Amino acid sequence: MIDLRSDTLTRPTPAMRQAMASALVGDDVYGEDPTVNELEARTAELLGHEAGLFCPTGSMANMLGVWLHVRPGTEVLCDQQAHIARAEMGGHAVLHGVTMRTWHATSPTPGVADVADITDLMSIGTGPYLVETAAVEIENTHNFAGGTVQPIGHLRAVRQACQDAGVAMHLDGARLWNAHVATGVPMIDYGRLFDSVNVCYSKGLGAPVGSVLVSDAESIARARVQRKRLGGGMRQAGVLAAAALYALDHHVTRLADDHANARAFAEQLALRAPGVIDPESVPTNIVVLGTGERPAAGVMAAARERGVALSTVGASKVRAVTHLDVDAAGCREAGRVLGEILAS
Amino acid sequence: MIDLRSDTLTRPTPAMRQAMASALVGDDVYGEDPTVNELEARTAELLGHEAGLFCPTGSMANMLGVWLHVRPGTEVLCDQQAHIARAEMGGHAVLHGVTMRTWHATSPTPGVADVADITDLMSIGTGPYLVETAAVEIENTHNFAGGTVQPIGHLRAVRQACQDAGVAMHLDGARLWNAHVATGVPMIDYGRLFDSVNVCYSKGLGAPVGSVLVSDAESIARARVQRKRLGGGMRQAGVLAAAALYALDHHVTRLADDHANARAFAEQLALRAPGVIDPESVPTNIVVLGTGERPAAGVMAAARERGVALSTVGASKVRAVTHLDVDAAGCREAGRVLGEILAS
Amino acid sequence: MIDLRSDTLTRPTPAMRQAMASALVGDDVYGEDPTVNELEARTAELLGHEAGLFCPTGSMANMLGVWLHVRPGTEVLCDQQAHIARAEMGGHAVLHGVTMRTWHATSPTPGVADVADITDLMSIGTGPYLVETAAVEIENTHNFAGGTVQPIGHLRAVRQACQDAGVAMHLDGARLWNAHVATGVPMIDYGRLFDSVNVCYSKGLGAPVGSVLVSDAESIARARVQRKRLGGGMRQAGVLAAAALYALDHHVTRLADDHANARAFAEQLALRAPGVIDPESVPTNIVVLGTGERPAAGVMAAARERGVALSTVGASKVRAVTHLDVDAAGCREAGRVLGEILAS
Amino acid sequence: MIDLRSDTLTRPTPAMRQAMASALVGDDVYGEDPTVNELEARTAELLGHEAGLFCPTGSMANMLGVWLHVRPGTEVLCDQQAHIARAEMGGHAVLHGVTMRTWHATSPTPGVADVADITDLMSIGTGPYLVETAAVEIENTHNFAGGTVQPIGHLRAVRQACQDAGVAMHLDGARLWNAHVATGVPMIDYGRLFDSVNVCYSKGLGAPVGSVLVSDAESIARARVQRKRLGGGMRQAGVLAAAALYALDHHVTRLADDHANARAFAEQLALRAPGVIDPESVPTNIVVLGTGERPAAGVMAAARERGVALSTVGASKVRAVTHLDVDAAGCREAGRVLGEILAS
Repeated sequence: MIDLRSDTLTRPTPAMRQAMASALVGDDVYGEDPTVNELEARTAELLGHEAGLFCPTGSMANMLGVWLHVRPGTEVLCDQQAHIARAEMGGHAVLHGVTMRTWHATSPTPGVADVADITDLMSIGTGPYLVETAAVEIENTHNFAGGTVQPIGHLRAVRQACQDAGVAMHLDGARLWNAHVATGVPMIDYGRLFDSVNVCYSKGLGAPVGSVLVSDAESIARARVQRKRLGGGMRQAGVLAAAALYALDHHVTRLADDHANARAFAEQLALRAPGVIDPESVPTNIVVLGTGERPAAGVMAAARERGVALSTVGASKVRAVTHLDVDAAGCREAGRVLGEILAS
Repeated sequence: MIDLRSDTLTRPTPAMRQAMASALVGDDVYGEDPTVNELEARTAELLGHEAGLFCPTGSMANMLGVWLHVRPGTEVLCDQQAHIARAEMGGHAVLHGVTMRTWHATSPTPGVADVADITDLMSIGTGPYLVETAAVEIENTHNFAGGTVQPIGHLRAVRQACQDAGVAMHLDGARLWNAHVATGVPMIDYGRLFDSVNVCYSKGLGAPVGSVLVSDAESIARARVQRKRLGGGMRQAGVLAAAALYALDHHVTRLADDHANARAFAEQLALRAPGVIDPESVPTNIVVLGTGERPAAGVMAAARERGVALSTVGASKVRAVTHLDVDAAGCREAGRVLGEILAS
Repeated sequence: MIDLRSDTLTRPTPAMRQAMASALVGDDVYGEDPTVNELEARTAELLGHEAGLFCPTGSMANMLGVWLHVRPGTEVLCDQQAHIARAEMGGHAVLHGVTMRTWHATSPTPGVADVADITDLMSIGTGPYLVETAAVEIENTHNFAGGTVQPIGHLRAVRQACQDAGVAMHLDGARLWNAHVATGVPMIDYGRLFDSVNVCYSKGLGAPVGSVLVSDAESIARARVQRKRLGGGMRQAGVLAAAALYALDHHVTRLADDHANARAFAEQLALRAPGVIDPESVPTNIVVLGTGERPAAGVMAAARERGVALSTVGASKVRAVTHLDVDAAGCREAGRVLGEILAS
Repeated sequence: MIDLRSDTLTRPTPAMRQAMASALVGDDVYGEDPTVNELEARTAELLGHEAGLFCPTGSMANMLGVWLHVRPGTEVLCDQQAHIARAEMGGHAVLHGVTMRTWHATSPTPGVADVADITDLMSIGTGPYLVETAAVEIENTHNFAGGTVQPIGHLRAVRQACQDAGVAMHLDGARLWNAHVATGVPMIDYGRLFDSVNVCYSKGLGAPVGSVLVSDAESIARARVQRKRLGGGMRQAGVLAAAALYALDHHVTRLADDHANARAFAEQLALRAPGVIDPESVPTNIVVLGTGERPAAGVMAAARERGVALSTVGASKVRAVTHLDVDAAGCREAGRVLGEILAS
């Protein structure tokens, strides 16, 4: 099976396993795991923030990040297709009582909103009877929009608008690594534009488990308490943090291979099913394809029968994600298979 | 003061007070208040539903209506400017854990969405990792969009789309009376298109307190329990229901006066501040005006100094609402005052 | 039917209805209802607090009172049989995320705890990994314990213990009127011992709807916002507040009649079913009786067949509550009926 | 430092690390991690249940276990000193809206309640206005009561009472291993008495991270979805599950050493501070000591200065926990140090 369902599927490499096996550990609930502490500090520094918090999942890191800014009765604004809105099981509302309104961003780049669309949506200083906007959330790269990159100039403009309005910003940077590699923009340039950032080590970077939330020291101290409340206060988590540190040192630049593989996948696909996709438009390691009249579930099943695993992200949308565990040949083969299915 | 801040300001008339003073009452927590029971039954019948539930506010009726359909982890879709999204203090998320995504509807009629924009937003049958769409909410008339009316044909198309997708529909009909009077469409024709409907007696109809949620009998039984949980299980509420029954019998058709007064207000305004508003576009009893470069708060303050009370619904939007307690002359005078302010 | 299910059943008297019919009203969401404002101010003054908030139910007033003191992740301590623990539908936890632990108080007076049992339960200054005690809640009179009165000396001792520990206190004084009348202790002496107090006008006092929460001005301002979030922001609520003001002026001292009637009920009962109850032990207007081996539901059904309505408050406990709408003869007759049933 | 703060402090042994480094892994969110699947299946079988769910913490496993049984508006009953009540940050109420009432159990064995005290507290079939008891929670061994064991006969009696009343039972078996080793009662005999059980691998058993919740297959399927909502859906969690499997095979019987060490600690302590503790009363690996007039924090600080780390579990209670990483000599030395402090 050529498995392109998600880059969460990656398995730790032998060298990464070795790093885990020899990690120094302690009880992280007491703040005494040296490897976790190192990972948190390095991630914070990388993104220009004061402190970090290791979380078992990116969903938890996002939930904590939004929670930092949005008191009950205030709201977060985000894209209609944001991971926090669609793919975190409603936890923001169910567990944290977060109110959300969403904008719609399709053109020119899916998932990249007009600044005016964001500011028009803000509700600021409108008094005690209306929900006040507390935070804006941005996803970079944008998963369901097809791995699209938020241009740094755009982010700066959103930042300015939020700052003028007194609105906080959270970055779901689960795949910020991919944006960084695709554009060359330093991680810190992204990180400094936000009040809090989540980056995941368990997706393209290939670590088995874990994400880090960064923010100012006081906010992270608050998030640490809430992490325990959510049931995320792990003990000797250094065995996991060691894998993340290894990934940080060895797996960032190689994301360029995943990007090239995604484009190669799209090229093979376009050869067989002309017009379905423009390979030039593939921004990083994710390809989201409309399946037109066919149900996405049917296309997914047909591909699986021919040895290619995909996922669906809508009734007529399938998604392929390239990663560490599928090589270039596999990606090209997957493109051929899917192209033939869509052309038939 | 000519007070056009809201139609919630209406005070009970002498005849309505008389009806309250002579109402038969009982303990409604035990279901034994005959006047509440009559109001619930009549409202349900009027809207083509099996049962009704008297609530102290429209916010509570909306919270219960949405709650009926949206289990934790599923979502409701609605307009970006919906009352449930902006003006119910975030209670849907804070208290009920409701996840929400919003659409954007501005043209041709503010607050009336393209059916395709609604269906594109739906997330149906996408499996255990994505939030499933459970309900669509519609507001008619649409308060913050300027009292606009949802065309019955449009509502039928949305209903069809929701039915096809297995998605429930809740109507925030706080001012459905106004839509009914403005269009002549029977209340029941609106009501039958929805799985639950909230109508308010305390706005244009002039009762002091109370709204009724209608739905099928089993849903209303569930909502009755949750109403008590929210602290809304009043005792001899028949004294309030009597006012609502009086309003139902005597104050519906007179809403046409409020609509005429709103248009007269806009005409006077347009005479003095040409281009600010097209009086022909005023659909019911609400006028929402952009204040351009001026902050809405400043315009509101200037009007108040000259004896006209308005409210703001955004940083550069003021709202005037006509109602039972302001006559035609008052509305025209208010239009003159606001026109002179905006023209200056 | 002699209806002793609850003192919530009382219906407004003609004079009370007259007061409602002539009440001055305004929009209380804007703080402009003069009758509501008067009721809030008078109730606050009566209890030695700065400000008051009119609520549609005692449940909502209690929910807001506890919410004032208990941030998510901290706890309230109360009696195992407290109304807030058993009879408010779990709203404190469901809607407000309040953690609760309970003490057990049976002797010498049911519902009146040893101070040491309360202090032993407190969790103070124990660091970030344990839930901190934020508030203690007391119910006076204590409904499910049989209308028992919390002795003022006892309350002072609890207050001292809470003050020493930095723990806030909320009083569920739904029937504080009864404690006041039974003991002669001024309302203000009770009120000043607590950080917040709920008193109900819709129980023994006979108003149709409404309770008032009192506390300091800043807390009441916060509670006002949360009341709206719960859906409790009524409009021209002065029609209800007028009934409460009437009750305050005319129905407090007459509670002594209800107390005498409860004792007369118990005397008749004891004559026929010796040993079931000591009439001398009936403290106010509530009698809770163990039904021994018989299910409470069966006893309740048998009484109803003979024209006496009771309620159950446990699998083998029935409750009778005297009130404005049942006279002395009715209460004695009810005692005879129940005595015969229990003796048979 | 002789560190007896908690048995959560244990670090993985070299052999355990080896097992982790060579674990087969997959994406557990997709149910494809073979090592996680094996751990879940083996734990379920061990406890006589159908299915298991690996969680990052015991807190999360307990939250999911209670959540399975307690719908919003119903309640769980437990001990006043239960871990779920005091040490899980209020998450049950804050995140899941769980209502809780507590019993008080001190004699003859702290933390072991009279069955009658539990049944008296139950609220069953009392109708729509009272909170219904949905579940009883038991902790075995009982942490804050001093590692006490719930006698199997007692548990059977509670089970019978719950079964008669239609009330579910959840076992917080974080340290059920210790109860099993101390009594010889098979794990399955404990497990079968409950509808759900949490066992932790990260405490006495010495694994770095992880607990398993077991129940029937349908319940575990529901809990799996809610685990993701809480942010606990880890990816290649097999690296952690491998450590737990190793602990299951190699670290259970050795808990007898921890128990002997706890007793040796108490013996040394009692020699120096007679009357403070009866060493015969130490049931497993936890010793909770009253510090009398001295604040627990002061005693803890004094011990730390002399190289012994303890924790506090109340204003005048310190706790010592023996475990894998402190040998017999260390425990005896700690007893000597604490005895001298308490005697001075």
